[in-house]
Amino acid sequence: MSNAARILNPALRSKIMSADEAAALITPGANVGMSGFTGAGYPKAVPLALANRIDAAHARGEPFRIGVWTGASTAPELDGALAKVNGFAMRLPYQSDPNCRKQINSGEMEYTDIHLSHVAQYAWFGFLGHLDVAVVEVAAVLEDGRLLPANSIGNNKTWLDQADKVILEVNSWVNAGLDGMHDIYYGTRRPPDRRPVPINNPGDRIGDRYYTIDPSKIVAVVETDSRDRNSPFTPPDANSKLIAGHILDFLAHEVRRGRLPRNMLPLQSGVGNVANAVLGGLIEGPFEDLTAYTEVLQDGMLDLIKAGKMRFASATAVSLSPDAALAFNNDAQEMKKSVILRPQEISNHPEVIRRLGIIAMNGLIEADIYGNVNSTHIGGTAIMNGIGGSGDFARNAFLSIFMTPSTAKNGAISCIVPMVTHVDHTEHDVHVVVTEQGLADLRGLSPKQRAKVIIENCAHPDYKPALREYFTRALEESPGRHTPHLLDEAFRFLPEWKAQQASRAAE
Amino acid sequence: MSNAARILNPALRSKIMSADEAAALITPGANVGMSGFTGAGYPKAVPLALANRIDAAHARGEPFRIGVWTGASTAPELDGALAKVNGFAMRLPYQSDPNCRKQINSGEMEYTDIHLSHVAQYAWFGFLGHLDVAVVEVAAVLEDGRLLPANSIGNNKTWLDQADKVILEVNSWVNAGLDGMHDIYYGTRRPPDRRPVPINNPGDRIGDRYYTIDPSKIVAVVETDSRDRNSPFTPPDANSKLIAGHILDFLAHEVRRGRLPRNMLPLQSGVGNVANAVLGGLIEGPFEDLTAYTEVLQDGMLDLIKAGKMRFASATAVSLSPDAALAFNNDAQEMKKSVILRPQEISNHPEVIRRLGIIAMNGLIEADIYGNVNSTHIGGTAIMNGIGGSGDFARNAFLSIFMTPSTAKNGAISCIVPMVTHVDHTEHDVHVVVTEQGLADLRGLSPKQRAKVIIENCAHPDYKPALREYFTRALEESPGRHTPHLLDEAFRFLPEWKAQQASRAAE
Repeated sequence: MSNAARILNPALRSKIMSADEAAALITPGANVGMSGFTGAGYPKAVPLALANRIDAAHARGEPFRIGVWTGASTAPELDGALAKVNGFAMRLPYQSDPNCRKQINSGEMEYTDIHLSHVAQYAWFGFLGHLDVAVVEVAAVLEDGRLLPANSIGNNKTWLDQADKVILEVNSWVNAGLDGMHDIYYGTRRPPDRRPVPINNPGDRIGDRYYTIDPSKIVAVVETDSRDRNSPFTPPDANSKLIAGHILDFLAHEVRRGRLPRNMLPLQSGVGNVANAVLGGLIEGPFEDLTAYTEVLQDGMLDLIKAGKMRFASATAVSLSPDAALAFNNDAQEMKKSVILRPQEISNHPEVIRRLGIIAMNGLIEADIYGNVNSTHIGGTAIMNGIGGSGDFARNAFLSIFMTPSTAKNGAISCIVPMVTHVDHTEHDVHVVVTEQGLADLRGLSPKQRAKVIIENCAHPDYKPALREYFTRALEESPGRHTPHLLDEAFRFLPEWKAQQASRAAE
Repeated sequence: MSNAARILNPALRSKIMSADEAAALITPGANVGMSGFTGAGYPKAVPLALANRIDAAHARGEPFRIGVWTGASTAPELDGALAKVNGFAMRLPYQSDPNCRKQINSGEMEYTDIHLSHVAQYAWFGFLGHLDVAVVEVAAVLEDGRLLPANSIGNNKTWLDQADKVILEVNSWVNAGLDGMHDIYYGTRRPPDRRPVPINNPGDRIGDRYYTIDPSKIVAVVETDSRDRNSPFTPPDANSKLIAGHILDFLAHEVRRGRLPRNMLPLQSGVGNVANAVLGGLIEGPFEDLTAYTEVLQDGMLDLIKAGKMRFASATAVSLSPDAALAFNNDAQEMKKSVILRPQEISNHPEVIRRLGIIAMNGLIEADIYGNVNSTHIGGTAIMNGIGGSGDFARNAFLSIFMTPSTAKNGAISCIVPMVTHVDHTEHDVHVVVTEQGLADLRGLSPKQRAKVIIENCAHPDYKPALREYFTRALEESPGRHTPHLLDEAFRFLPEWKAQQASRAAE
């Protein structure tokens, strides 16, 4: 399909222009809502052109920075390019780009890390300021001006509704055969006019196939023809397979105890190799007729669908390896029988997550012995990526599982610590912590009971003695013994213990 | 009305017995689900008799402890009495009793602090173990065996459904004229069979007036005739009035900006004097036709109803001063036109809270400069009460407001700190922090932007220089500058700064 055939509306055809011309419509200080979620469906031409424009302005000594709101993470062509030219005044609600992260952690740009289900409503409520421009990738423009979405939905509906001006990127690489995969819910309202979101099963369709937009707002249409920048997944390592094994054993145990149906409940899975290993494990496992209600479709979920193990998957975006992305695009007609892409306010809606009873599986940076989880900060001060949808899912899930290797940096750091340096998921929201060492089932336990199972089941043997020592001493010396802590040592305990061990070994 | 007229079902009349006889039916190690929420509707006789029984067993050298699950806090006759005899093996999901707190913080009993909306479903999911006995206060037993609830619902429906054996306390002090005030929703299911909770307005009735129960499970009926133990509210102090003023100014500002309807959105308010001051302020304020969708009806809300300012209030319990409780009981027929009491899984349901768009106002113990809130722990180790419903409301609210005097202990402690010692509400869940000093609107702000407004608007002048110094030094020395911190000093900074000031002053 040529680009021409992708832009059927005559009025919008007349607005076709180059990315440079379109980028010239974005002014310094603007808030710009862009498409893009986990590296899928981000605009591929205008942000690069805009970065050049900003760079040139800076070279002339003119200030030029913008606020950028997206669905979630994008790609080097967007976050990377704009960060490199110091083009961000403010970024929200999620990023995972090395250059962007560097800018945030050097204090050169502001970053607001928001639950992904909250973003669209905050824009509607007027909590984020005014949205000046939207830059949204779509797969096609219909004759009547409606828009066929591409490989992610994210907050596109809201950006298209809210922005004063809209720049479309029409990407002819995306197979137009995915027409019918999307479900754009136009039933959201601002309180007090909200009504139930009528999803009772992951496969329920409640919206439209297309974005509807006032065509007079569209100021530019840019043609593109390039695929999403996908990263290959490395095959699961031994630790990922062990973690997957513990989770599958636990789920099988829950079925035997009658606490889970034989076909589970809808799965949510964070992105990454551990998550893919769990999904890979399910292919071998005894569970049939699975469903997913999640943010992102990964390779592992498509494999489950192809293997006939998963009946249906609902998400807001795909995030696939290059080969899987190619296959997904080629098989769009077939895939849409088992896949729905929704706006992220619906894929991550607390109401729907609680109703469906999701089994939520998310990664973490560190967990403490009392079950608090840090998902976002290195050393309590530097952002890694952001909370993403983990809070939407963990708080409202049927089962909230957090998984991590027990150590990082080749064993130099324990991911189980006395006290996390930043809290994203509180002790109230974490049912299960699992590492390659084992699984801690925290349901119904008091803090001290949690500490015992987390240390004994999850900590790496190299750090278990230190954590036991901390907990034992805290039990004796802590002013309060509900959550015993030695505040003066909480953050230093493990590094100092490790240094002692090393110096003893050197003697 | 005599007790006899309160127990119309003949089969259940035959089960009338003394509290001692009923307490004898509870065996060591049992899990017991009791009624009671914020000091309303707790059983008044059986727990005292049970405490005596436990005390006697201990005197004989026999072990006797039980697990107690409630709605929320109860009263000295329940939590106090059982804690005094060391009768708790495990307590959940909330308490506020001094003796109970002492036992928890000395490490002598286990306490599991759970979001109040999660408790009933955890019981249904089998996450909390087996429920052996329910001890529930009701206002009457109907001829067909259905039960008229009393002044709180809490988790009573779930305890009555789930327990093997049920002990009823029928309290004839409670005005049976409140028949019609309650709304017991029997539409909850376990996933995958859940459907939307059909509440679109605080006043929507979706359930039954009575508890339905299999009468064969009822092993004892105990007659009581005493009122809930209510604490008087002290009149709002100057700080509470200042906090209320800042909140009312802010709400008026939001109306002017078009972000709130003129009659607001449904209010949720934590318990306490600051909360009551805010409600008192609303009586004087410009807002009409208010509603509440909250956990607890306090004096302030009843005053709003009586003043014609509030049209409707939905809660799971009343928590009134002695005078207001008496008036409420006397006026039950009138009050039920404007008041609904629901199960706490519905009063606190994330789905309904998000749909209605609640204005949530909750207290805190300490907030940090980045907007993280500690609601539960003193010094990070000792429990105060528990998270209660604050997480249900804050995470899902339209506006999530946290309020506190800027200092505690007569100014000896700053409630605004560099880093909270325990996190119950993360930076992602706090829109507004307000003290008597002023209000910090954190919506859309990055951590560093939040720090500036929290320090400048909310901190007490005595601590502002120290907090500024911490933030400035953290900006320079922190390894990451997304959330700048000096981890080695974060918990000690204010006390050490204060000691320095004192020693300088003494020189």
